[in-house]
Amino acid sequence: MAIITLTTDFGEKDHFAGATKGAIYSELPNVRIVDISHSVSPFNIPEAAYIIQNAYRSFPKGTIHIIGIDSEINQENKHIAIKLDDHYFVCANNGIMSMICSEIAPEKIVEINIHDKIQTSFPVLDVFVKVACHIARGGTLEVIGKTIDTIKPIKHIAPYVNDDKTQIIGSVIYIDNYGNVVTNIKRNFFETIQKGRAFEISARSYKFKKIFNKYSDIVNFEIPEEKRHDEGKGMVVFNSGDFLEIAVYKSNTATVGSASSLMGMRIMDTVSIHFIKEEVYVG
Amino acid sequence: MAIITLTTDFGEKDHFAGATKGAIYSELPNVRIVDISHSVSPFNIPEAAYIIQNAYRSFPKGTIHIIGIDSEINQENKHIAIKLDDHYFVCANNGIMSMICSEIAPEKIVEINIHDKIQTSFPVLDVFVKVACHIARGGTLEVIGKTIDTIKPIKHIAPYVNDDKTQIIGSVIYIDNYGNVVTNIKRNFFETIQKGRAFEISARSYKFKKIFNKYSDIVNFEIPEEKRHDEGKGMVVFNSGDFLEIAVYKSNTATVGSASSLMGMRIMDTVSIHFIKEEVYVG
Amino acid sequence: MAIITLTTDFGEKDHFAGATKGAIYSELPNVRIVDISHSVSPFNIPEAAYIIQNAYRSFPKGTIHIIGIDSEINQENKHIAIKLDDHYFVCANNGIMSMICSEIAPEKIVEINIHDKIQTSFPVLDVFVKVACHIARGGTLEVIGKTIDTIKPIKHIAPYVNDDKTQIIGSVIYIDNYGNVVTNIKRNFFETIQKGRAFEISARSYKFKKIFNKYSDIVNFEIPEEKRHDEGKGMVVFNSGDFLEIAVYKSNTATVGSASSLMGMRIMDTVSIHFIKEEVYVG
Repeated sequence: MAIITLTTDFGEKDHFAGATKGAIYSELPNVRIVDISHSVSPFNIPEAAYIIQNAYRSFPKGTIHIIGIDSEINQENKHIAIKLDDHYFVCANNGIMSMICSEIAPEKIVEINIHDKIQTSFPVLDVFVKVACHIARGGTLEVIGKTIDTIKPIKHIAPYVNDDKTQIIGSVIYIDNYGNVVTNIKRNFFETIQKGRAFEISARSYKFKKIFNKYSDIVNFEIPEEKRHDEGKGMVVFNSGDFLEIAVYKSNTATVGSASSLMGMRIMDTVSIHFIKEEVYVG
Repeated sequence: MAIITLTTDFGEKDHFAGATKGAIYSELPNVRIVDISHSVSPFNIPEAAYIIQNAYRSFPKGTIHIIGIDSEINQENKHIAIKLDDHYFVCANNGIMSMICSEIAPEKIVEINIHDKIQTSFPVLDVFVKVACHIARGGTLEVIGKTIDTIKPIKHIAPYVNDDKTQIIGSVIYIDNYGNVVTNIKRNFFETIQKGRAFEISARSYKFKKIFNKYSDIVNFEIPEEKRHDEGKGMVVFNSGDFLEIAVYKSNTATVGSASSLMGMRIMDTVSIHFIKEEVYVG
Repeated sequence: MAIITLTTDFGEKDHFAGATKGAIYSELPNVRIVDISHSVSPFNIPEAAYIIQNAYRSFPKGTIHIIGIDSEINQENKHIAIKLDDHYFVCANNGIMSMICSEIAPEKIVEINIHDKIQTSFPVLDVFVKVACHIARGGTLEVIGKTIDTIKPIKHIAPYVNDDKTQIIGSVIYIDNYGNVVTNIKRNFFETIQKGRAFEISARSYKFKKIFNKYSDIVNFEIPEEKRHDEGKGMVVFNSGDFLEIAVYKSNTATVGSASSLMGMRIMDTVSIHFIKEEVYVG
């Protein structure tokens, strides 16, 4: 059975997500619909890009992902369908796919051209559902669009490295449900620049010299539980999506605080890494 | 496979929605359950009415819609099941269905009378699920209730037109996830009164003389993108449900603001339309 | 078809819940996944315990419940799988299951030991999904873990009764979507201590001498609707899960207020019941 996922900024309350599911089942009774998120901040393309990049990989090959963010069609915002990593993505050509495409080359991109038959103010329901169901039935991308070569990029999404490679300047791209602060610095990228050198990570006035493997690695289990003060401590990890993240152990924005609330960090803030030059021994 | 949808004010956190789904699968292993919304404001009947009216139409004929808002049974609040437009609705007789029923006549309404066997403080789970599964198995409404002719109305839900038809006075019935302000004035109704005349729409101190077809129609694409100031501009559209809506292009209540936040508009506020009398040319 | 439910603190926005569902479908194409809640407060074990206890019972026997709260493995937080009441639960051994286990004895508890093959910073996806799918395929608990006898308790979760049984001192364990205040005093426990005596329930400065069967029982239907003032009135009920609850009829935290907001009651606050000694008649 084909799987169609939904990632949108429709919110949890409105009828939009429900109506979209109804339209899919009306087209295709035997399909599995999976909600990834409907709580992307309105029109927030980097957020949607981060969520879909981290979610899609867990799904079986062949899954079709509808991304409904800023999807109203106009002369600057066309609809596209992409085949990449044996998954399909249906969305607007507004930058959402540029984060994934910078890591994995798309096999095929088409600009959807079935709009002459469709006059709509609800393109996810009227266009994306039709395209997704077409793919789910085994249809090819060429039937619903014309091949294009490039997609629109998101600006400022890649971290910056200085010329002598002593510094990475990244930025915050996502704050998660635990208030953890996710940067655009990925583990592979970091290790390629690092080459084993020591480093110091700076975020506002905070400094970190270590990257942990998991959150509870900050706990000293030799101290009795009631005497520990690990909860609320800032730390750096590579998260499960391999993004460098500034976190707080057992954070809760509403109670003990979180990396975002305690350190006052927000989307687009800078996080920099300074690599310590190794002394060359002159014998 | 039968489809049962859920529209409730249970919220996203509590166990109520999960328990309801469990009860459905316990009664009927082969059914498809679709969440429409669990984030209706508590006891907010007009909100629920707006959501279900806009969502149900996209589902296949024969779908059964459970609406769990203010569903505790008592002498003034009975349970009903309605067949309308080849869909089934199971809910309390508290006005939720009056918005849909004012547009499409119900084929059948029954007052559910299976309660003598059921003592419950969770009627959605104990009553609505049983009724929905009965219908899903092909059962008739007559078996679970006695036919009634009328349902309880929602007050003040229809817009007002003055005697000489120069004015429509509507009201705000819903604020959506983008902060867009939805009125009770539908396109058909508007056009019937308008008869091609020019008009002025008033909402608080704001005036609009045009209704756009889609949100990005407010953008002047001839101006280079970096010089435009369209985001945050107020406008009027008929939304995808054909309701007259005061909107803001690319709104976000948390950042750039929305129609609701920028214009200070709230549920039950008045939106009026004044039609301009055409000059009669006396030759 | 096997059913796997999800109860987590992942929130509605992040990719975690979506990715988990994708991983389940990748392991097991023919399974039914049901969201119970992803909005448990971060790391809030009593909340999760309350939600799962109230939800699981409605599901068919054999259902597998993944509970993803505070699930990072470390020397003090192991992973367990439990068979209880013909349901399966997969979670961390952090107290979540102690509320259910205090009422119904588990048939089998195993400490999961498949971790030697798995290095993970996303244990729900990498460990719990594998265990749940193993059980869904009919696998036994012994294959994925070693049997243990006891689980970690939640502290202070049971109400206190004084020696002469004239008083129960309970506490608030949950605030629901309607702002109703749920205590840890269950109907059976209450009735066993009460033995038919009159009582007075105290919550902050509020006193109640009656427990209602349902919320609208506080309404006097003989008074015309427009003259009633029942909405907003405090009352005590046993809720649908049989927990003693301080409620407000037709509450809405955002508008008319709720038990929690109007009475200023919060998690861990005390609710006490004083039983009135019956006069012994000395003839």
